Amino acid sequence: MLPWFQVDEILLRALREDVPYLDLSCEGLFPPSHRSNAYLLAKSEGVLCGAAIFLRTFTLLDPTCAGKILKDDGEAFAPGDRLLTLEGPTAALLQGERTALNLLQHLSGVATATARVCRTVEGTSARVADTRKTLPGLRALQKYAVRCGGGSNHRFSLSDGVMLKDNHIDAAGSIAKAVAAARVHLGHMVKLEVEARTLEEVQDALMAGADVIMLDNMSREQMREAVALVRGSSARRVPLEASGDITEANAAAVAATGVDILSLGALTHSARAANISMKIQTE
Amino acid sequence: MLPWFQVDEILLRALREDVPYLDLSCEGLFPPSHRSNAYLLAKSEGVLCGAAIFLRTFTLLDPTCAGKILKDDGEAFAPGDRLLTLEGPTAALLQGERTALNLLQHLSGVATATARVCRTVEGTSARVADTRKTLPGLRALQKYAVRCGGGSNHRFSLSDGVMLKDNHIDAAGSIAKAVAAARVHLGHMVKLEVEARTLEEVQDALMAGADVIMLDNMSREQMREAVALVRGSSARRVPLEASGDITEANAAAVAATGVDILSLGALTHSARAANISMKIQTE
Amino acid sequence: MLPWFQVDEILLRALREDVPYLDLSCEGLFPPSHRSNAYLLAKSEGVLCGAAIFLRTFTLLDPTCAGKILKDDGEAFAPGDRLLTLEGPTAALLQGERTALNLLQHLSGVATATARVCRTVEGTSARVADTRKTLPGLRALQKYAVRCGGGSNHRFSLSDGVMLKDNHIDAAGSIAKAVAAARVHLGHMVKLEVEARTLEEVQDALMAGADVIMLDNMSREQMREAVALVRGSSARRVPLEASGDITEANAAAVAATGVDILSLGALTHSARAANISMKIQTE
Amino acid sequence: MLPWFQVDEILLRALREDVPYLDLSCEGLFPPSHRSNAYLLAKSEGVLCGAAIFLRTFTLLDPTCAGKILKDDGEAFAPGDRLLTLEGPTAALLQGERTALNLLQHLSGVATATARVCRTVEGTSARVADTRKTLPGLRALQKYAVRCGGGSNHRFSLSDGVMLKDNHIDAAGSIAKAVAAARVHLGHMVKLEVEARTLEEVQDALMAGADVIMLDNMSREQMREAVALVRGSSARRVPLEASGDITEANAAAVAATGVDILSLGALTHSARAANISMKIQTE
Amino acid sequence: MLPWFQVDEILLRALREDVPYLDLSCEGLFPPSHRSNAYLLAKSEGVLCGAAIFLRTFTLLDPTCAGKILKDDGEAFAPGDRLLTLEGPTAALLQGERTALNLLQHLSGVATATARVCRTVEGTSARVADTRKTLPGLRALQKYAVRCGGGSNHRFSLSDGVMLKDNHIDAAGSIAKAVAAARVHLGHMVKLEVEARTLEEVQDALMAGADVIMLDNMSREQMREAVALVRGSSARRVPLEASGDITEANAAAVAATGVDILSLGALTHSARAANISMKIQTE
Amino acid sequence: MLPWFQVDEILLRALREDVPYLDLSCEGLFPPSHRSNAYLLAKSEGVLCGAAIFLRTFTLLDPTCAGKILKDDGEAFAPGDRLLTLEGPTAALLQGERTALNLLQHLSGVATATARVCRTVEGTSARVADTRKTLPGLRALQKYAVRCGGGSNHRFSLSDGVMLKDNHIDAAGSIAKAVAAARVHLGHMVKLEVEARTLEEVQDALMAGADVIMLDNMSREQMREAVALVRGSSARRVPLEASGDITEANAAAVAATGVDILSLGALTHSARAANISMKIQTE
Repeated sequence: MLPWFQVDEILLRALREDVPYLDLSCEGLFPPSHRSNAYLLAKSEGVLCGAAIFLRTFTLLDPTCAGKILKDDGEAFAPGDRLLTLEGPTAALLQGERTALNLLQHLSGVATATARVCRTVEGTSARVADTRKTLPGLRALQKYAVRCGGGSNHRFSLSDGVMLKDNHIDAAGSIAKAVAAARVHLGHMVKLEVEARTLEEVQDALMAGADVIMLDNMSREQMREAVALVRGSSARRVPLEASGDITEANAAAVAATGVDILSLGALTHSARAANISMKIQTE
Repeated sequence: MLPWFQVDEILLRALREDVPYLDLSCEGLFPPSHRSNAYLLAKSEGVLCGAAIFLRTFTLLDPTCAGKILKDDGEAFAPGDRLLTLEGPTAALLQGERTALNLLQHLSGVATATARVCRTVEGTSARVADTRKTLPGLRALQKYAVRCGGGSNHRFSLSDGVMLKDNHIDAAGSIAKAVAAARVHLGHMVKLEVEARTLEEVQDALMAGADVIMLDNMSREQMREAVALVRGSSARRVPLEASGDITEANAAAVAATGVDILSLGALTHSARAANISMKIQTE
Repeated sequence: MLPWFQVDEILLRALREDVPYLDLSCEGLFPPSHRSNAYLLAKSEGVLCGAAIFLRTFTLLDPTCAGKILKDDGEAFAPGDRLLTLEGPTAALLQGERTALNLLQHLSGVATATARVCRTVEGTSARVADTRKTLPGLRALQKYAVRCGGGSNHRFSLSDGVMLKDNHIDAAGSIAKAVAAARVHLGHMVKLEVEARTLEEVQDALMAGADVIMLDNMSREQMREAVALVRGSSARRVPLEASGDITEANAAAVAATGVDILSLGALTHSARAANISMKIQTE
Repeated sequence: MLPWFQVDEILLRALREDVPYLDLSCEGLFPPSHRSNAYLLAKSEGVLCGAAIFLRTFTLLDPTCAGKILKDDGEAFAPGDRLLTLEGPTAALLQGERTALNLLQHLSGVATATARVCRTVEGTSARVADTRKTLPGLRALQKYAVRCGGGSNHRFSLSDGVMLKDNHIDAAGSIAKAVAAARVHLGHMVKLEVEARTLEEVQDALMAGADVIMLDNMSREQMREAVALVRGSSARRVPLEASGDITEANAAAVAATGVDILSLGALTHSARAANISMKIQTE
Repeated sequence: MLPWFQVDEILLRALREDVPYLDLSCEGLFPPSHRSNAYLLAKSEGVLCGAAIFLRTFTLLDPTCAGKILKDDGEAFAPGDRLLTLEGPTAALLQGERTALNLLQHLSGVATATARVCRTVEGTSARVADTRKTLPGLRALQKYAVRCGGGSNHRFSLSDGVMLKDNHIDAAGSIAKAVAAARVHLGHMVKLEVEARTLEEVQDALMAGADVIMLDNMSREQMREAVALVRGSSARRVPLEASGDITEANAAAVAATGVDILSLGALTHSARAANISMKIQTE
Repeated sequence: MLPWFQVDEILLRALREDVPYLDLSCEGLFPPSHRSNAYLLAKSEGVLCGAAIFLRTFTLLDPTCAGKILKDDGEAFAPGDRLLTLEGPTAALLQGERTALNLLQHLSGVATATARVCRTVEGTSARVADTRKTLPGLRALQKYAVRCGGGSNHRFSLSDGVMLKDNHIDAAGSIAKAVAAARVHLGHMVKLEVEARTLEEVQDALMAGADVIMLDNMSREQMREAVALVRGSSARRVPLEASGDITEANAAAVAATGVDILSLGALTHSARAANISMKIQTE
């Protein structure tokens, strides 16, 4: 689902960043024939993302590196778990270690944060979604991590979905006019979402034919009313997305209002790295 | 200090990521002649990083965009502060908004996290440093952000500094042998750091002529003894770096041991995005 | 709508392709101070696409080149029309001529082909759409050209829309099962289209909740029946896309069946270059 | 003859264009272990170009894909012919299908168009050549396709051949002066062609020592006279190239005038995609 | 003649190589408002190449840098000559200094070496040419430098000229067969050169219709005989290229044999950097 | 030590430079099944650098190429030595020959020049170092070659070491002030070198706490005095680097002054290519 040509580009960029010239670290200590075993050790709880990417880092450096994945992307881990094993030239293991870990820890951090929010809304029909608030150069990987954590992806870019906000609406004069203007050129495979901050705007967006309506920074009371309004007024089942300051702590309460999607920028812009370390066992 | 050719590469990559094909968002709503004003509004406390980079995003999209920086990188901001103003075609402002904010919020998050740790060690001689635990593709920018927050940079890559760890030492047979082997090929402008986990290793590293000694996951008591040992035994003033689970909460206590550098991976791998938003005022 | 950072990348690649080393063409003939005027002359009927891109080619080569667009993208032209004028160093005009024309003629060819099909379906509610049958490296530009010709864009890539075909359906066991399996992971901003080759499959796709149904290589009689079936059976208004061997000649007849979208790979994979030439007037 | 490093660059760019983020198409339907067979089926007559490139697309996606080429580049095919077979993970086959076909169909279209013109001039000494009227980013591949169709390549770029046109001649004052000026700096491995629109210009170009003379938009009568003039007046055998509105329909007549080369921009700028489809047989 | 898009690519790559992360050199010393003047000072004799490229380095770093070229590319300079002046932010001048000088000194070294050989053959009809023995990534620039020094360019690449060597001839069976086989697919704008090591091979190459004949490592006596043979036997004037261990010391003697071209790999693979320095005058 | 991802980037760039379109050289002569043996033959004395890189060129072109390294990087060779053998498709051997040789000859030239200077200082404690005077795009490889020749690397870039020169010192007011200003922001892993042109400046630099002092264009007498001054005045052992017009001829005399490092720009900016040729033995 995540193509290798994308992964390789990111890994090679990161490797170049970590070794712009010569690798000074191992000189005089590890001849090419010196090989070691290594493994990934979890030191906290979490959900794994990036196991195959981690291995790929080393095979890009040296095709004789080989490993075995013990936990797959999307699986939960606990402190003490071994996540994968790896064997290769010691110099290659030490050269790739930081680059491989940086990516794995970050992606597992995103997956873990997502999974924690998902857990709180279990039993409701709400889905947890990401946003375009991603780190430069990492959008595809972060969105993959959100999925590994059980979340769902919002639009990937400005090319594959339309979101009409106050600026658009003001410029057009009304929600109805903004939606109509946007629809003129929109392809039949693209969905259009309208940001609403009041029930009136929800009603307008519904009438205007929005495919999705975002409830922007609404109180839970307002959300409940929006849900009632949308469920009641139409055969058309328009999904409602709650957005704005949703956290692990309040997600369950937001989901309880009946909204369909909870979107959280923090999943990707503020995830803490997962605590996983690589142990190299030099004989 | 941060060259534009690096910034442009990262911004163009991020823009391509956010608009891989056409920008569907503004069609039919904002003709090229439709222009707006915008400003950056702080919604929390923090230290700014990325103001000029933020503006650059928009001038890359449209050279007629122009702005005014109200706070410089490295300056503190409080909720309600306006950080910069910007004017340009509305379509360009909306197209660049997310990309520019993603980077600004992340870098300001790193700077803010750094500044908070720095504040706790004020009055001591300890410096707060980053690590190579950076996000792929963002090392130069993140290290720039650490400086904006008042921190100091550890080595940038495997090409500009040597760190001897247990694997190197085991392979060589002893710290002395590992240092000697590494020194053979090392240029005269490169520093060599040795990781020590016991006082005995600190002593060995000192004797072996390490330029810097890292106290790896030591207790504060051990750190104090290491400081005493190094200060006492030699005319040579070898800096000591404390590393491992240092946080804003315990940094002051660590600094009080007398170590010279506190290094924290979390500054770059787990920073929370700063809460800053962009307000577009369409007439 | 079409970002310059994408255009520049394509233009620079094309320029490198046309001058991999030195430009041998003008040596000894045109000193840097030798400047000329030029204009674009239409030699056939068509719809323009690429005027600003054409000019950009020359300003990338030499920022002192300047031009004036006489017809905008999307406007019709007739033989003898002047489309734009340009002034600059003669050597730059000759260096950029072929690269700029190659792109302009191709994009105007795509826009023209699209406009011709669109004209035949005027008065119906059917839209003319492109496909993913684009030329490598030119997808965004070709899809932009389709819009200039009055057409509409189908999905841009495998990342922004789902199309279930016989292979997917066979693997899942039925249309219902395939749709259900695909929906599990699909974000709320992504549409799902199902390819149907029989009325039964249309019915299945409708029941399965497809967002769009493609009538694949159906006879017009079948299309009419599909339209009746979909219009009749549901409050939900599912768009129907006709696909397979649609041409300028038969598009009107296809549109008359009542389908919503006609998609044609030939718009992008087999467009003839528009007949436009550049006249350089050296004093 | 066509280096892989060029092909890979184009294929990876096209794949990135078709899957900028995740591949949504196969999720939940084809686990990595699900493999299928596929084959390429010709649906019209033509000349093949791109068989190995087609296969390469899939091995870049997944090295376990493997195929067998049944027809080589340059071979003719007829409707119903199987051109190659392929086996691999179903998800990889579906992911690469469009990218691989887009290139194969285009290149085979160019080869086919070339072959059709070549056939009409069989028995004459005239060769069919391409021009620099190629699509951005595809010059090497299109010129390869022209060769597969039996054609010959004109210059590749402004760096490997000189063509003096009216602008050059006007600036220099005469053909003789333009040729002399251009020769001053020209390397001994570069040929110089002069565009002539009248017999007088042909005569001037011949006297000036042009390596090749282009008969630009001449009538066939003029071409015959030019041939006579050049054959008669000199021991030197200067090739004559006919250019301007040459088509499959009139190529034989043009060749009958005795010219050496017929060059056609349409071979590369207006080729129709060959009708070839890929059949995936999922068990 | 040398397009900027090529120069920029090389300069940006070199700048990234010299400042992979932050520029540590000027921090705390030169605020952005601190500006300086600078000039280029020749410290030896030579021929200049790269003046505009030198300036471009600084404008890429900071568009407020501005300079004045006092000597053009291709002009001779003597110790003490000022070659250009420059003004800009001190930090930008110090940041670009090494990158700009590295390229200027190398290119001027190539131009100077070329000019010295050219001077020795003045008065003969022989031209001095380069080869494909260039440094990776610098072919276009080095070939431009050869021209600035008064030399001429041999083929640029394997795509724009054919050279048949012993391996080709052995494989084909004879020079005649090799030439015939190569001609089959060769475009009409491409020249074919044959390497000859004996007079017999020169005769064969002449008969086979080679466009150019290389006299490979022949004695001067052999060269004279080859010249006589070629001049005597044919109306066709086939250029003869002398190759192998030609130096500034023996070039005049080689030229005196009557050959047309002297090619020297050393011009590009072994040029000494010109002795030019940049003086920055900080007020 | 030199990562493959760096080497591949340089090789692919060079290959694209040598075959921008089709490879015209072997057509009609060497079918894919035609294979040959080849070997590298030394024709002069020197030190090898680039053997594995040489082989890599061919495996990038065709993975069926295979070779055997007979001399490793860093080993001396004499005329007549075979350095490696290679087997592969003849077309691939001819296609890669020039690119592979260009790099090998250059790098071996750098290693050889370095080794010759190193030999003259044997028996002293002085090390021979390179500078940042490298060729654009080749810094990492040239610095690797210096090491193969027995030399040592000076700083790699402006990001990994600081050198304070007259401009910095003038701006700050004194050496002491310049060092102090630079130290404020400098990370603990970065060394700071000060350029001194007089003994007084050496004394100042020593007092200011420079990590390294460069003796810039000093006479040997001055160097001796500087050595005495530094050895005498301090427990701190500050390395002294001699720089400016050091050659193979005078290096021993410079080393005899007691300085620690001799740095020579000529190692990388003016190295002569090593005389090594590739012999292809076509059966």
